[in-house]
Amino acid sequence: MSLMLQEIAEQPAVLERTIQAEQSKVAKLGEFLRKKEIDLIVLVARGSSDNACQLGRYLIEATTGIPVSLSAPSIFTLYKSKLNLKRALVIGVSQSGEGDDINQVLENAKNSGAYTLGITNESESTMAKLADETLLIHAGREKSVAATKTYTGQMLHFYMLAAQLSDEAIQFEKIPQYAEQVLQLKSKVEELVERYVFMENCVVVGRGMNYGNSYELALKLMETCYVVAERFSSADFFHGPLAIIERRFPVILFAPTGVTKQSNLDLLTRLKDLHADSLSITNDPEIAALSSRSLMMPAEIDEFLSPIPNIIPAQLFAALLSEAKGINPDAPRSLSKVTKTI
Amino acid sequence: MSLMLQEIAEQPAVLERTIQAEQSKVAKLGEFLRKKEIDLIVLVARGSSDNACQLGRYLIEATTGIPVSLSAPSIFTLYKSKLNLKRALVIGVSQSGEGDDINQVLENAKNSGAYTLGITNESESTMAKLADETLLIHAGREKSVAATKTYTGQMLHFYMLAAQLSDEAIQFEKIPQYAEQVLQLKSKVEELVERYVFMENCVVVGRGMNYGNSYELALKLMETCYVVAERFSSADFFHGPLAIIERRFPVILFAPTGVTKQSNLDLLTRLKDLHADSLSITNDPEIAALSSRSLMMPAEIDEFLSPIPNIIPAQLFAALLSEAKGINPDAPRSLSKVTKTI
Repeated sequence: MSLMLQEIAEQPAVLERTIQAEQSKVAKLGEFLRKKEIDLIVLVARGSSDNACQLGRYLIEATTGIPVSLSAPSIFTLYKSKLNLKRALVIGVSQSGEGDDINQVLENAKNSGAYTLGITNESESTMAKLADETLLIHAGREKSVAATKTYTGQMLHFYMLAAQLSDEAIQFEKIPQYAEQVLQLKSKVEELVERYVFMENCVVVGRGMNYGNSYELALKLMETCYVVAERFSSADFFHGPLAIIERRFPVILFAPTGVTKQSNLDLLTRLKDLHADSLSITNDPEIAALSSRSLMMPAEIDEFLSPIPNIIPAQLFAALLSEAKGINPDAPRSLSKVTKTI
Repeated sequence: MSLMLQEIAEQPAVLERTIQAEQSKVAKLGEFLRKKEIDLIVLVARGSSDNACQLGRYLIEATTGIPVSLSAPSIFTLYKSKLNLKRALVIGVSQSGEGDDINQVLENAKNSGAYTLGITNESESTMAKLADETLLIHAGREKSVAATKTYTGQMLHFYMLAAQLSDEAIQFEKIPQYAEQVLQLKSKVEELVERYVFMENCVVVGRGMNYGNSYELALKLMETCYVVAERFSSADFFHGPLAIIERRFPVILFAPTGVTKQSNLDLLTRLKDLHADSLSITNDPEIAALSSRSLMMPAEIDEFLSPIPNIIPAQLFAALLSEAKGINPDAPRSLSKVTKTI
C-alpha cells in the first residue's frame, strides 16, 4: 500500500489525537485573543496549507465576524512593504514549518506589532520557534509528498480556533468519527477510479466551506495523477470558465446538502444540458440524481462540518486513480516534499 | 474585425479618457479617505473584475501599508454573516454594476458602517446608485462577452486610488501611452498564434503585480479559445502543479524585468529541463533567451507599471488564437455578458 493511502487512513486517529493534545492550549489562546480585541486575521501559507487557509477564512468570518485576509507573501518578500498589522492576528500555516517566505512574513508581522501564531506538524521547526504561539498537528512525520493528514489537521485547528473566538457552538468533536465513517468508501472509490483512467483534464468545483477543498483535490490530481485540474467556486464557474465544457468533460463537485446546494443544483443542471460528466461528493439525494456518478456521504454530516469528511474520499480518489494510471503516488515526478520560495 | 479586437484597440483612448474624467474625483476621495483613517480595504468582485482586484490588492498593500482582503461574497449571501467593517473601505468592482451578489455585499457593508466605493463602466447601474462614491470607467458600452477595456480601466482606477492613498509617486499617466505602444505587437501576435492552434491545455504564470494577469489570460483562453488554462503564481507552481508538466506542455509567463525576475528565471530553467514549451511576455533579454518564444515589451516599462501594458498582447493572443482555431471570440459557447450569482 502506498504511503499516501496509509496516511489517508491515519486521519481519524490524527484528528482525535490533535483534539486531545491541543484543545486546552487553543482554549487559553482564544481567551487571550478575545481580550486583545483582534480586528483582522491574516493567514499565510502556500500549497495545501493555503487550501486549508481557504477553509479557515470562511470559518472564521462566518462565525466570528472578524475580517480575514489571505496574505500575498510577495508583498513582504519581494516588495519589502510593511503592512499596518498592529491589531491583527497573523497565522502562518506550514506542514514542515520551514517555508522560508511564510516564516519571513511571520517575522515581519511580529516586528510590526502583530500577534503571531504558527500551525505546523513539526514542533522543532523554524516556524514553531518564531511564532508567539504554536498549535501542533499530531500527525507524526508526513512521508508522502502529497499532503493528506496534515491538511485535515490544519483544517481541524481552524475549527478549534473558530470555536474559541465565536459565540456559536461548533461541534468539531464529531469530525474524527465522521472521518472514520467515510474511510469505508474506499472500496467504492477503488471501483470508481477505473472509469477515470484516461481522464486528462477536469474541473473541480466547491463553494463556501468546501471552496478550499476544490483547490486541494485539484492539487492532488495534478500532483499524483498528472491531470490538468482546474478549480473554481460554482459561482465563479459561470463567469467564463463554463465555455471549456464540452460533451463528457469531467467535473467533480463537493456538493453537500445545505446553503451551497442550490448553486450546485444550478450548475449540475447546466452541465447536464451540455452533456458533461459530473461526479459529486454529496450527501444529498437530489444532487446525486442530477450527477453522472456520485460518492454518497453520511446524511447526518452538516455542510458546516463537511469539509474534512468530504476531502477524504477525494484523497482516496486521487491516490487510487494515480495507481490505476500506473503512477506511484508517493513519487510524483518533478516534486520534493519541502519547497523553498522567496 | 471582431468586437473583441476592436475593444482591445480602444484601450489607450479609454485609459486616457478615464484619467481626464476621474482624476479630480479620485483626488478628493483620497483626501477624504486619508482623514477617515481607513485601516482595512475589502475588494469585492467576480470574473475579470476579480482579476483586476488581484492587482488592486498588491498595489494598495505595497504602496500604502493598508491591509487588503479579497472578499468571499458567500460569507454575506449564503452564510448571512456580518463582518466588523467599521473602519473599512469596501470597494465593489463590476463592469455592468449589476452583479447581484457584489451589490448585496456592498449594501451589507454600508449598513455595518463601512465606506463603500463602486468601480463600474455603467453610471446608471445599481452599483453606482448604491455605493457612497462611484469611480467610472469611460469605456463606452462593452459589447464583447470577453471583457478587455473594462478590465484595464478597472486596473487603472486602482493605480489612481493608490496614488492618492500612498506617499510614493505613482506615474500612472504613462500607462495610456504604453498601451498605445504595445498594440503594435498585433502583427507579431498574429504570426505567433498559428503555432498554438492545436493547444488544448496550458498554464499561465504571473507573480506579484502580474498575478491577476495570469488569472485574466487564463480566463480569456477558457472563454474565447476553449483551452483548459490553469493559472498560478510562479511561487505556488513549485508546490505540486509542476508535476503536470511534460514534454511540450505550454506555459505562458508574464515575466517583466524587476523583482519577480529571479523567480521566473528559476521556473524557466526548470521548464527547460522538463522540455516544456514556454512563451514569455517580457521586456527582459535574459528571460527571452530562456523561453521557447517571447513577445518583447518596451524596455522602459517598469514592473510596477507593467500589468496594463502586459495584458494587451495577451488579450490579442486570445482574440487571434480564437479566430485561428475557427471560433468566434464574440460569441463564446454557453456564456452571456451579465452573470447573476447569489
